[in-house]
Amino acid sequence: MTRLTIPVHLRWSDIDAYQHVNNAKIFTILEETRIAAFWDGPASHGTAHRVFTTGPGSGTHTYIARQEIEYLEPLPYTPGPLPVQLWISHLGGASLDICYEIAGADGPAVRALSTMVLVDEATGRPRRLTADEREACQPFLDEPVPFRRRRG
Amino acid sequence: MTRLTIPVHLRWSDIDAYQHVNNAKIFTILEETRIAAFWDGPASHGTAHRVFTTGPGSGTHTYIARQEIEYLEPLPYTPGPLPVQLWISHLGGASLDICYEIAGADGPAVRALSTMVLVDEATGRPRRLTADEREACQPFLDEPVPFRRRRG
Amino acid sequence: MTRLTIPVHLRWSDIDAYQHVNNAKIFTILEETRIAAFWDGPASHGTAHRVFTTGPGSGTHTYIARQEIEYLEPLPYTPGPLPVQLWISHLGGASLDICYEIAGADGPAVRALSTMVLVDEATGRPRRLTADEREACQPFLDEPVPFRRRRG
Amino acid sequence: MTRLTIPVHLRWSDIDAYQHVNNAKIFTILEETRIAAFWDGPASHGTAHRVFTTGPGSGTHTYIARQEIEYLEPLPYTPGPLPVQLWISHLGGASLDICYEIAGADGPAVRALSTMVLVDEATGRPRRLTADEREACQPFLDEPVPFRRRRG
Repeated sequence: MTRLTIPVHLRWSDIDAYQHVNNAKIFTILEETRIAAFWDGPASHGTAHRVFTTGPGSGTHTYIARQEIEYLEPLPYTPGPLPVQLWISHLGGASLDICYEIAGADGPAVRALSTMVLVDEATGRPRRLTADEREACQPFLDEPVPFRRRRG
Repeated sequence: MTRLTIPVHLRWSDIDAYQHVNNAKIFTILEETRIAAFWDGPASHGTAHRVFTTGPGSGTHTYIARQEIEYLEPLPYTPGPLPVQLWISHLGGASLDICYEIAGADGPAVRALSTMVLVDEATGRPRRLTADEREACQPFLDEPVPFRRRRG
Repeated sequence: MTRLTIPVHLRWSDIDAYQHVNNAKIFTILEETRIAAFWDGPASHGTAHRVFTTGPGSGTHTYIARQEIEYLEPLPYTPGPLPVQLWISHLGGASLDICYEIAGADGPAVRALSTMVLVDEATGRPRRLTADEREACQPFLDEPVPFRRRRG
Repeated sequence: MTRLTIPVHLRWSDIDAYQHVNNAKIFTILEETRIAAFWDGPASHGTAHRVFTTGPGSGTHTYIARQEIEYLEPLPYTPGPLPVQLWISHLGGASLDICYEIAGADGPAVRALSTMVLVDEATGRPRRLTADEREACQPFLDEPVPFRRRRG
């Protein structure tokens, strides 16, 4: 029931010729927030909740199976930290959905969702979330972010 | 009824620590294919179909309103050109949907869709597609790419 | 006589297939430190010294005329902030040299220098540093970073 | 005595808020040209000369020890291929210097040099260029690119 708020730093080169954060770079920024929020390692920004221990050499890799995003307002460059809200909206057998919201001047600027799959580093095949991982996710479960512009 | 096939060049730095093309970089690659396919300018790869004339100084900007992607297979680095199929699946009043498919070893590796909005450079507000733009889009209209992993 | 220490955040995607920060991305990281250190705007990391007010719309652009770098040790991914030392080693008529050092496990991992030119936004031509800018730079002047591997 | 000319494709997102190719991205572009020119693999752009076989899994990694660049003219976005000249200016025991030149409207826009070190994948230590590698480099040897703005 807790949405985490993770501050991320934009980079000047995230801005494209339209003077806004480039559409693809926003996925890089979301990648940073989920690592800072849930991945183990020396605590990043003091915010890591150490739900998952993954990455090259750890025994588990994390692949992204699906992403969806709505850009409701262009994001300008801001030199200070940009707060990103994120939470978990679904726990599957070997996967989970992470939702994100970035505030804009008049309501949400960005809404997004990533489906992550845990993959066994040795076999390259999906592996089930452990009981410990499931329990560690509980405090961060909330409703899926509402998408408005899906067609069909 | 024509799906265009646009060759794009991966860059070595598109590959991340997992030895595959990074999830966010795939959106950069898709951005390159739609520019090469539909945007005016000195012909890119000999493939430009000059449907739209946009960009800083042109009178029209292009914003992305929404994107959706399924990663069905990891993309390894390939030094030669990577063929990307793309087509238009919807023409709205001031927007259009572009669909993409990248082939993998066993079927599609990536399926994606971007909703683009044409924005008047002077007012910053959406502007309607012109009759000429609509007509130029006709040959590239096809069914939306099928997404398999949507939830809810 | 003061070398500033600016913390920057690496991104997971700064790491390339060799599991180290990519050579080109280090220039992006150095770009972030000099913006955080010297450029005006809402204080970034609480470290901005507001020596320069530049950027699109400000009347002054900043171009880079020259860069030099030695990579003495590969930089691994670190989720916490990475401290970068930087200082000014030369004030020219319309330009300045900024030096950087990033510490590694056994001494410096990276040494670099950027020559920046201030350019008048209206004319596109170099413009002289003002007396105020020169004075604001004084506390950060120090010897040039020593390069060891220059040839010829 | 032959300078190679390698065409590379800029990406729209290489352009920053100043409407030119970002200073750090030019190093990414140079990285692409040297891979296309000298590295083994399915021929990239039909230009690969297969001097080196390196990369994760090949037995040899390539590290960059030093880079130097002069930006003489800003590079605008060009959708078509951008020709980059490159050649080898020095063969050391375990390293080589690669020089680059990108033409601008009024003479060279970019001049740069990268010192590459061949590293044994198993030991992580530099390894000497083989006789075959040295011989394969001979046709591409030329004078170092002249830098004009070095200080001290």
